Amino acid sequence: MEKRIILLPGDGIGKEILEAAVKVLHVVEEKFNHRFVYETHAIGGNAIDRFGVPLTDETVNACKNADAVLLGAVGGPKWDNVPADIRPEKGLLKIRKELGLFANLRPIKAFASLLHASPLKEHIIKDSDILIVRELTSGIYFGKPSERRENGKVVVDTLYYERYEIERIVDKAFQFARMRKKKLTSVDKANVLESSRVWREIVNEKSSLYPDVEVEHLLVDAASMKLITNPSQFDVLVTENMFGDILSDEASVLTGSLGMLPSASIRSDQFGLYEPIHGSAPDIAGKGMANPIGMILSAALMLRFSFVMEEEASAIEAAVNETLSDGYHTADLQIENGTKLSTNEITEVITEKLQSTITGKKFSNV
Amino acid sequence: MEKRIILLPGDGIGKEILEAAVKVLHVVEEKFNHRFVYETHAIGGNAIDRFGVPLTDETVNACKNADAVLLGAVGGPKWDNVPADIRPEKGLLKIRKELGLFANLRPIKAFASLLHASPLKEHIIKDSDILIVRELTSGIYFGKPSERRENGKVVVDTLYYERYEIERIVDKAFQFARMRKKKLTSVDKANVLESSRVWREIVNEKSSLYPDVEVEHLLVDAASMKLITNPSQFDVLVTENMFGDILSDEASVLTGSLGMLPSASIRSDQFGLYEPIHGSAPDIAGKGMANPIGMILSAALMLRFSFVMEEEASAIEAAVNETLSDGYHTADLQIENGTKLSTNEITEVITEKLQSTITGKKFSNV
Ligand SMILES: [Mg+2]
Ligand SMILES: [Mg+2]
Repeated sequence: MEKRIILLPGDGIGKEILEAAVKVLHVVEEKFNHRFVYETHAIGGNAIDRFGVPLTDETVNACKNADAVLLGAVGGPKWDNVPADIRPEKGLLKIRKELGLFANLRPIKAFASLLHASPLKEHIIKDSDILIVRELTSGIYFGKPSERRENGKVVVDTLYYERYEIERIVDKAFQFARMRKKKLTSVDKANVLESSRVWREIVNEKSSLYPDVEVEHLLVDAASMKLITNPSQFDVLVTENMFGDILSDEASVLTGSLGMLPSASIRSDQFGLYEPIHGSAPDIAGKGMANPIGMILSAALMLRFSFVMEEEASAIEAAVNETLSDGYHTADLQIENGTKLSTNEITEVITEKLQSTITGKKFSNV
Repeated sequence: MEKRIILLPGDGIGKEILEAAVKVLHVVEEKFNHRFVYETHAIGGNAIDRFGVPLTDETVNACKNADAVLLGAVGGPKWDNVPADIRPEKGLLKIRKELGLFANLRPIKAFASLLHASPLKEHIIKDSDILIVRELTSGIYFGKPSERRENGKVVVDTLYYERYEIERIVDKAFQFARMRKKKLTSVDKANVLESSRVWREIVNEKSSLYPDVEVEHLLVDAASMKLITNPSQFDVLVTENMFGDILSDEASVLTGSLGMLPSASIRSDQFGLYEPIHGSAPDIAGKGMANPIGMILSAALMLRFSFVMEEEASAIEAAVNETLSDGYHTADLQIENGTKLSTNEITEVITEKLQSTITGKKFSNV
C-alpha cells in the first residue's frame, strides 16, 4: 500500500525523534511491502524564523493532500517574546482546526518495566489500558459568547455543542471500543448540565447501533476518582472537550511514563495527525539524548487508525515493549540494572526487535 | 462561650455518627469551659417520611438562628422512587442555598497509619495536607441559559460569574492560607476561558491585601496532574465550582481514607454547615459498625471555622490521629495488628484520648 505522509518536525527535539520514527517505519515498509512517501514541512518556531508565521498555507495544503501527518513538537524559549497571535503553539491549534481534526485520542498503557515510576501503587496501575477519546473542536473552549458584561461586573463563557458534533465523536468512540475490549465509558455531568443530558441521550441512541459494545455512564467527578482508584476498569473513555482536557491529563501521569505517550487527532475519514504528548525539550535538543518512544508509538497509532494496519502497529508496540523489558532506556528513564542508550541506539534496538518479531511470525502479506 | 448548634442527623448512619460527634464535643465543652446548645431537626428521607418534603421551613429557620449546623448524611434506597423534586439530596442542595453557603471546604490530609490504603505510593502521599476551597453557588452549574435550541440541534450551558462571587471566595481562600502554610494555589483555565481570566485578575488584585501569602496560578489540567504526582506541594487550593467539583473528588481518593474526610460549607460571616463527605450507608445503619471519624472531624472543622476555637479543633484532630496510630479502627478500615472497634467503642477511645491530651497540656482557658 502506498501512503503519503507529511513530516512536521517542529522545534527542539522534534527533528531527532521524527527521524527515529521514520527509521522504524522503514522496517515496516520493507517487511510488509508498503511504500511510504514523505514530505517535510515547517511548523512552530522554525516556521516563524523562516516565514514569519508558525504555519504557512503551503504546509496546510501539503497536509490536506496527504494521508497522514507526523508531528514532533513545537515551541521553545527562543520564541517567548513573539506576538501572541503567532506563537509556535498557534501553529498547532491552527493545523488541527484547518484539518478539521475533532477527535483527540490518548492511549494510556502501563509498561511493565516502568511501573516503579508510576505515582500509583503497582497493583493498581498494572493492567491499565485506556483509550481516551476527547472532543477537540467545540464545547466551552470555543463557544460564544465568551465575554465581560456590565462594565466587568459579570463574565460568561458558553458551553456550546451542535448535535452532529456529539454524534460524530460518540460514533468514533464506539468504533474504537469495537476494535478493543468492547467497553465504552461515557463521561458527562448529566445531573447538572443540559449539554451533558444531550450527550448522554446521544450515547444511548448510538448504543443500539453497536449492541456488542457495553456502555457505562459516569459523572465527571466520579471519573476523576476512578481513574486513580481503579484505572484498569476502563477500556474506551469518551467525553467532551473540557472534561477530556482535565481527565486525559490526569490519566497521562498515572503510568509514570508521560514522556512516552503518543496521541492522535483525527476526523471522520481516515486522515489523522499524530504526535507525542511531550514538549520540544529545547534543553536537550541536538544532544542525542531524547527519548523517541512517544514519537515511535505515535507512528504506530498512525498505522492503526489512518492506514488500518493493525498488525504493523502491534508489531511496533511489541518491539518497544520488548526493548524496555530488556532494560534498554534513554536518559529520562531509570530501569534497575538497565542499559542507558542514546536516541539513535535505542532506535536501533527497536528496529532490530521489529525486524526479528516480524520475521519470526508468519504474516499473510510478507 | 455559648454556641447554638443544629443537629441534622438525616438518614442511614447519620444518627449514630452524629451522636458520636456530640460525645466528643461534650468533652470539649467541659474541658474548655464552653456551652453548646443542641437542637435536632429532620432532613432528607426521614423528613420526607414525616413531612412529605426533604427540608421544612421550620428546619431552615432553626438553622438561620443558630451558630452552626452539623449534618450526618441523607438518602437511601427507601426513597429511590420519590418524585425528583423532593428527593432526599434536594434537602441538602436547598439548605446550602437557603443559608447562602458559597464556599465548600475540603481538607485532605493523609493519616500516617492508613497510608497503605492509599492508591498512591506512600512516599508521594505521605506529607500531603491540602485544603480545597470550592465556589459552591455559582458558575456553570447554575448559569442561564442552560437549554436546547433549534429543535434540539444545539445545546448550551452558561458559565456565569459575578465579580463579587469570585471576590468573596478568593478572600476566604487567602484567609485560610494565612491560618495555614501561607501558600495559595489558584486553579483556572485562563489560557482559554474569559471567566478564568477575570478569576486570575481578581486573585492578583486580592493578593496585594495578603502580601504574606505566596500565590501560584495553575491551569486546571495541570492541577489534575500535580494532585497525583506531587500532592504535598499544595497548601490551600481555590477554584470555581465545576473545577472544584472535579478536583476535590479527585483529591478525596488520594489518601485512601475517603470515608473519614470532613467538609464544611460556609459563607462570609462565621456561620457554617459541617458534614462528612461519605454517604448514609443504609446497609450498615443501626448496626454499630459505622465509622464516626468523618463526622467527628467535621465537628472539629466547625470549632475551627465557625467558633474560632483552633486549640479545641486541633485537640480533637490529635485525638483521632492518636487513636488510629494506636491501631484502633472501625470495620471499614484495615490496620495491620490493629484492633477493630464498634462506633461506640472507637468514640470512647477518641474521647479518652481527648481528655488526656487536654489535661496533659496547659490551655489558657481551662
Ligand atoms: Mg491539557
Ligand atoms: Mg462531586
